Amino acid sequence: MPVGTQATVKAMTPAELESLGAQIILGNTYHLHVRPGEKLIARLGGLHRFMSWDRPILTDSGGFQVFSLAKLRKITEQGVHFQNHLDGTPTFIGPETSMEIQHDLGSDIVMLFDECPPHPCGYDDAAKSLDLTLRWAARCRAWWDTRPTENRPLLFGIVQGSSHADLREKSARALVDIGFDGYAVGGVSVGEPEREMFRAIENAVPFLPQDHPRYAMGLGTPPQIIEMIARGIDMFDCVLPTRLARNGTAFTASGTLNLKNAPFAEDPSPIEPGCECHACRHFSRAYLRHLVKAEEILGLRLISIHNLHFYLNLTRQARAHILAGTFQEFRETFVANYKSHTESTKDPG
Amino acid sequence: MPVGTQATVKAMTPAELESLGAQIILGNTYHLHVRPGEKLIARLGGLHRFMSWDRPILTDSGGFQVFSLAKLRKITEQGVHFQNHLDGTPTFIGPETSMEIQHDLGSDIVMLFDECPPHPCGYDDAAKSLDLTLRWAARCRAWWDTRPTENRPLLFGIVQGSSHADLREKSARALVDIGFDGYAVGGVSVGEPEREMFRAIENAVPFLPQDHPRYAMGLGTPPQIIEMIARGIDMFDCVLPTRLARNGTAFTASGTLNLKNAPFAEDPSPIEPGCECHACRHFSRAYLRHLVKAEEILGLRLISIHNLHFYLNLTRQARAHILAGTFQEFRETFVANYKSHTESTKDPG
Repeated sequence: MPVGTQATVKAMTPAELESLGAQIILGNTYHLHVRPGEKLIARLGGLHRFMSWDRPILTDSGGFQVFSLAKLRKITEQGVHFQNHLDGTPTFIGPETSMEIQHDLGSDIVMLFDECPPHPCGYDDAAKSLDLTLRWAARCRAWWDTRPTENRPLLFGIVQGSSHADLREKSARALVDIGFDGYAVGGVSVGEPEREMFRAIENAVPFLPQDHPRYAMGLGTPPQIIEMIARGIDMFDCVLPTRLARNGTAFTASGTLNLKNAPFAEDPSPIEPGCECHACRHFSRAYLRHLVKAEEILGLRLISIHNLHFYLNLTRQARAHILAGTFQEFRETFVANYKSHTESTKDPG
Repeated sequence: MPVGTQATVKAMTPAELESLGAQIILGNTYHLHVRPGEKLIARLGGLHRFMSWDRPILTDSGGFQVFSLAKLRKITEQGVHFQNHLDGTPTFIGPETSMEIQHDLGSDIVMLFDECPPHPCGYDDAAKSLDLTLRWAARCRAWWDTRPTENRPLLFGIVQGSSHADLREKSARALVDIGFDGYAVGGVSVGEPEREMFRAIENAVPFLPQDHPRYAMGLGTPPQIIEMIARGIDMFDCVLPTRLARNGTAFTASGTLNLKNAPFAEDPSPIEPGCECHACRHFSRAYLRHLVKAEEILGLRLISIHNLHFYLNLTRQARAHILAGTFQEFRETFVANYKSHTESTKDPG
């Protein structure tokens, strides 16, 4: 899922996203609540109509941003009091508020409101946080259960538990007991080593039903996506394709390219030879480098198009290899090719 | 002509420009000389191939930017010594250098290298500057006359003479004596009152051949474009559509809209009802206001699309009305409708 934080996938039109084959995008409940506000969006016909996107939208719960962006937080049993990051307005979001906002936005997949503990998080704190998140999960479920079932969005649970295996298991089992339409693994990619991130997934997935979608939130680099798929994950959202594009960084099968670098100044080849995206079919690395150096918007636009194509195509390839029974070989080759280059260039990816 | 200063019409792909019906764009010799350099562009196949635009390109001579952007200028008979605005590198551009740069870029319409005196400019200074510009014009013509005629670009003269009627006449007559493929009026829209700008055009046009294109450089607002067409001008370049878009300002037949303004917050209508551009067919003023307020690139992209459509459509309308014999009525109605709104909103346009 390309990430459309503020009712736009950065620098992209909906028509461009459709032509890249994006089936669903993510919207950020926190950001849209702060600006322009879900009530305004609802009066204008909902988020789909507001941003002119008629395919599915998944909205996060706002929890992650409340804990990472907002200031002066106070967590109570009811929810979280905070000051928003834009103008400091005192705001409250709890489980029911989050559901109401996502309802007003017209989300197709609603995420439950969870507490996101920082990394590292000791066992006692993680256990206490998890218990609160589970009580909030039940309240989110209850809020939807009182609403008409017709056209009701899907509701996804979020497995928490930090880096503690038994808490991850407890979280997953408890969510399945409540019953959700899909299950996310949250609290990953929050600063922990990659090995620990994989372990959090491994500690959750065995306890989630095979016939429900499983979603790793906020991930990741291309090899991480492949490694997560290998561990049973079906869905991702990731800001890297558009965020790195704005920094002049493009993804290729052999690693990232920083198009600002001098060796590309006269390079007539496309970002990735053979790539069928609009950027690679029409423009050279030399031209893109010029645009990035001159701080021209077209540069980050074209790299965004390429990077989103790369990510969407990566998951399409993974799906095809799974169906063909060749995923394991694809995984090994892809990860080996990608990593070697990334390491040699010391690119943070 | 949309303006493609640094080998890109800001925020637009060539494909989008084509779909808007842009027949030709302008490239800036000074900017491209400074970065990435015309020799690099030539090695990569010329400006058309570099930026993936296969319709005509007109390049200015660099003169205007040398006099408005560069620092520590010294004007001699040979040309202008200056330090570029990016890193202060000492640089020289004279008539022949400008022709060489435009040749290397692969321009389709080359502008001669002229001195651009500031406004206001007293008679003696303007006369002296004009004489230098005319000697440079002859050298530009001579440079091209030594080259093979096959695939040679068109060469346009530039009428100067500031606000002095007899100098404008002298300039036009002298250029026609030398002989060019088209004639521009330069040194307009340099800070003078609008009435004086129109007079500069009126003082030049009668002495320019009817069967050669006439081009008013660096203009203007929509009513100014119409007024210039009424005075016999055929071609324009203007940064306003893309520059004002980046400020959240959109053009309509009744004047400009600053989409940041609060009244648009919940306005479900498009920028201009009935407009057939991509922005107006899919997005509301409310959504565009949100994007502009949130500083999202998609906002300035969509307004750029609308504004370029507005300008290109305006000249298409003018042409249709000229052919239908209804231009005078179109002109009066358009200018009256546009001006009244502009005046009432105090928008600088």
